[in-house]
Amino acid sequence: MKVRRLFPIVDSIKNYDNDWLKGDVGAGLTVGVMLIPQGMAYASIAGLPAVYGLYASVIPLLVYAIFGTSRQLAVGPVAMVSLLTATAIGAIGDVSVSAYINYALILALMVGVIQFLLGVFRLGFLVNFLSHPVISGFTSAAALIIGLSQLKHLLGIDIPSSHHIHEIISNAIANFNAINWIAFLIGIVGISIIVLVKRYRKALPGQLFAVIVGILTVSFFGLGEGENAVSIIQDIPNTMPMFSIPTFGLNELQFLFPMALTIALVSFMESIAVAKAIQNKHRNYKVIPNQELVALGLANAVGSLFQSYPTTGGFSRTAVNDQAGAKTMLSSIISAVLILLTLLFLTPLFYNLPKSILAAVIMVAVFGLIDYKEAIRLWKSNKTDFFLLLATFFATLIFGIEKGIGAGVVLSLAMVIYKSTKPHVAVLANVPGTHFYRNIERFDTLIPIDDLLIYRFDSQIYFANAAYFKDKLEELVLEKKDDLRLIIIDGESINSIDSSGIHMLDEEIQKYKELHIDIAFTGIKGPVRDALEKGGIMKKISYEKCFMSIQEAVDAFEENKKDSEIEGKYDSYIKQSND
Amino acid sequence: MKVRRLFPIVDSIKNYDNDWLKGDVGAGLTVGVMLIPQGMAYASIAGLPAVYGLYASVIPLLVYAIFGTSRQLAVGPVAMVSLLTATAIGAIGDVSVSAYINYALILALMVGVIQFLLGVFRLGFLVNFLSHPVISGFTSAAALIIGLSQLKHLLGIDIPSSHHIHEIISNAIANFNAINWIAFLIGIVGISIIVLVKRYRKALPGQLFAVIVGILTVSFFGLGEGENAVSIIQDIPNTMPMFSIPTFGLNELQFLFPMALTIALVSFMESIAVAKAIQNKHRNYKVIPNQELVALGLANAVGSLFQSYPTTGGFSRTAVNDQAGAKTMLSSIISAVLILLTLLFLTPLFYNLPKSILAAVIMVAVFGLIDYKEAIRLWKSNKTDFFLLLATFFATLIFGIEKGIGAGVVLSLAMVIYKSTKPHVAVLANVPGTHFYRNIERFDTLIPIDDLLIYRFDSQIYFANAAYFKDKLEELVLEKKDDLRLIIIDGESINSIDSSGIHMLDEEIQKYKELHIDIAFTGIKGPVRDALEKGGIMKKISYEKCFMSIQEAVDAFEENKKDSEIEGKYDSYIKQSND
Repeated sequence: MKVRRLFPIVDSIKNYDNDWLKGDVGAGLTVGVMLIPQGMAYASIAGLPAVYGLYASVIPLLVYAIFGTSRQLAVGPVAMVSLLTATAIGAIGDVSVSAYINYALILALMVGVIQFLLGVFRLGFLVNFLSHPVISGFTSAAALIIGLSQLKHLLGIDIPSSHHIHEIISNAIANFNAINWIAFLIGIVGISIIVLVKRYRKALPGQLFAVIVGILTVSFFGLGEGENAVSIIQDIPNTMPMFSIPTFGLNELQFLFPMALTIALVSFMESIAVAKAIQNKHRNYKVIPNQELVALGLANAVGSLFQSYPTTGGFSRTAVNDQAGAKTMLSSIISAVLILLTLLFLTPLFYNLPKSILAAVIMVAVFGLIDYKEAIRLWKSNKTDFFLLLATFFATLIFGIEKGIGAGVVLSLAMVIYKSTKPHVAVLANVPGTHFYRNIERFDTLIPIDDLLIYRFDSQIYFANAAYFKDKLEELVLEKKDDLRLIIIDGESINSIDSSGIHMLDEEIQKYKELHIDIAFTGIKGPVRDALEKGGIMKKISYEKCFMSIQEAVDAFEENKKDSEIEGKYDSYIKQSND
Repeated sequence: MKVRRLFPIVDSIKNYDNDWLKGDVGAGLTVGVMLIPQGMAYASIAGLPAVYGLYASVIPLLVYAIFGTSRQLAVGPVAMVSLLTATAIGAIGDVSVSAYINYALILALMVGVIQFLLGVFRLGFLVNFLSHPVISGFTSAAALIIGLSQLKHLLGIDIPSSHHIHEIISNAIANFNAINWIAFLIGIVGISIIVLVKRYRKALPGQLFAVIVGILTVSFFGLGEGENAVSIIQDIPNTMPMFSIPTFGLNELQFLFPMALTIALVSFMESIAVAKAIQNKHRNYKVIPNQELVALGLANAVGSLFQSYPTTGGFSRTAVNDQAGAKTMLSSIISAVLILLTLLFLTPLFYNLPKSILAAVIMVAVFGLIDYKEAIRLWKSNKTDFFLLLATFFATLIFGIEKGIGAGVVLSLAMVIYKSTKPHVAVLANVPGTHFYRNIERFDTLIPIDDLLIYRFDSQIYFANAAYFKDKLEELVLEKKDDLRLIIIDGESINSIDSSGIHMLDEEIQKYKELHIDIAFTGIKGPVRDALEKGGIMKKISYEKCFMSIQEAVDAFEENKKDSEIEGKYDSYIKQSND
């Protein structure tokens, strides 16, 4: 049992259904073919030689296949994590290519260890703090940054890398005269091929077609040489990923840690989101977030020892894997083997691959992630969340990816807290002829009673809103003038109460007692009963003033006495608490 | 009307009742007499010459009397703010006495401006973030630090100032041989006088008696001179506070800003707490927090131009003022005049006042603030809040006052958020013979139905707990096995829902639809109805599946059809929403 939980692959092997084989093999080959251009393209986003995208497409896939709980997740290089890798190492300053590679591998190792530890200590829930608007705003901004970062390859010009959109665009315009129109044309053709195949023949590997067209064009016309040469990939080493331990000191670890943590969380977020979406489609297995962290962590950590930069489960390839019929991780193993064979035998074929084709692959992939529809939806449905999306989007564009996401999370939490300090409050009245009580501001058929105030406070009561509870109640009491004789506090919406809330209630009960206004409580929940009991103010409230429902409290009030028979009946429900 | 709100004193004057005069005069004189030793003592906590405590007891009182909304609040130097002042300026390093004084006045000006702006921009609610446990832990720690800071004066030894308890104590022990036993004896006598008068003759000014006994003893025996001289106050300038603008540059402002903000908030917190407590006793006026900020801000800012260091409304003097019969701010004006007269004519009398008597005044005052009973109460009633109290207490002792309070606030909020990610969840069942539904884990008389799950999620649904809502529901559904046909979600405890929550509900509805399990909602609140409607998932939920109460949903389920008559009746209550 425990073995199965630690090595979910055991389950897959034991229960392997031979009918699945065709789907697994087909999907594995499809994803593998997709991985070749994507891997090389994403490595170039990360600022690494193209072959590192292929290295990162072998060991991590195999490790995840052993430990992962998803059966369709396609692990490997992805655009977002590649960009984060470039950002992290870019912050170090100018370094040699070999040092750059070494940093990328250290980063993968750190990401792996962090994810592994987060999983072991069951901290996967941290990813829940990334709200939908934050993810959406952040993804759109990152997609824009990634897409535009490829502009130089698409246009065949040499402009400095930048993560600031206005710089990228103004640099591109300033270098208008230097545009390599042949490279640009090849790129545009590539984009067209990918988009058209995607639209009309989803099952075919459009990206590979674009790559083949690009290579053939350059080879045929000899465009890779001469004065106006199109920038091409050139030599790709003909080796499989080798075992090597990245070298590092404490300094590097300290410097890279914040970004490693960001990558660990962002990549987990991307991966778990797609894994859960696909699981919901299949329902014959269950994705376990903390085990996913362990699996992705091991994939990164072990991968880093075999020349792999940070990887995760990607959106697009996972979708393709699933659509192509993958039923188990056998599909991923087949993809990895295909990449390995490519590395060993096929890399010379990619010598003439134009960089503008890789740019085309990336641009089509990421611009699909820009989610303006969600922004419109939120504008219509939830202004706060719309504002959070926008804030995260611009914070990411202006301050960079990790700060943008951080700002989004902090703002979201601040907003939740701010709102909880001034929760919705309602005054209730009877729905004629029933025992229901509803908000008097929403329905004009309701019948309020002059000497009675029914107060619904739509929040837990805690230190930051205890004063608001009090002030709002006071305001409503003043509106009622001198007629008021009873305040009924609807306990159904009060989900918990802390010690500051109890202090406040204590004072309020005292205050209104002196004003000869009774306070009754209805439908108090178990945890709140416990807190009132332990806080020692249940005696001051008195069980006589606690009722199962508003109607009962009103009845008791109107009769100016309690029906002792009914009361006896419910005593245990009202008084029960776990001290 | 507006004038009255900006100058609450106008109201007091217009409605002045001549019967109040005796109380106001008596209280004003009592507090003034109390202010003489306290002012000098607190100035020494702040590291200032004693006379500055008297300066700070004139203008701020008069300014507050004009703008303040409380009628009993006694403004002036207080222990906590004095200590914070010492901490703030101490951080600058060794400076001359005149520079030190200048910093204290700059600080008062900054505190005043900050409080004034907070009030004008209605940010008084910020003080609500200081929860009871945080205030209690912080106050106890500060009292301990302040009290022990007087140890050197009480023992008559010269040890370096420190805010670390262990240093203070070990320094005192190391200097055991240097203890001035006469000073110590005088201090002990002073403490005894204050404590005994406090216990048996509350109305008398015990602190002043101690001061008189101290002065007479030193004068009579000539203890202020010679080899084993008792440390005394010596010359106090014979002048009233003069107008002068403190000199400062941008550097000082930047450096002092964090502490000025801390002092602004802490002093407001102390002041508003006591002002509200006294208001609750009187009820013939209303304390308005934002106007209080304006009043305290002006008191500090204007005070700083008349040689006054940061002041606020103090606990003990306000209580005395009230008990002595103060009805309006006339009492404060009388206190200020008494201090002014003292400054002009009586300061020579204090030449022989032993510092150990001032230490006695401070120690008795602050050790009364150590609130171990609250800690015991919380240990019994609320472990989380007990932990927060303890954490704030130790953080204050170890890291200092402003960091301690900061840590307390951040921890409190983190705890609130953490708890909201895993809210209480209950499965409900019918209370036999009624329409009430309660938690099956708390009552064993309840009758669960096999093919029905009634799910109560005790929290708003938002991004940080949407996944928990889903996971917990899934868990409960799995427990129900294949019998389950309907999930009823109790809407009464769901106070709001954000876009992440709506995304989640959308997926869940889809998921359970495919599993042929219906989802019904009961008692959805207005704001949640609005959000579901605007979020566009009300159609997927369908109004057919929304009910006024759990009982109705169960009835409809059991009859396997809805009573269309009843439904028609409630339609408007169920469908109403403000898009």
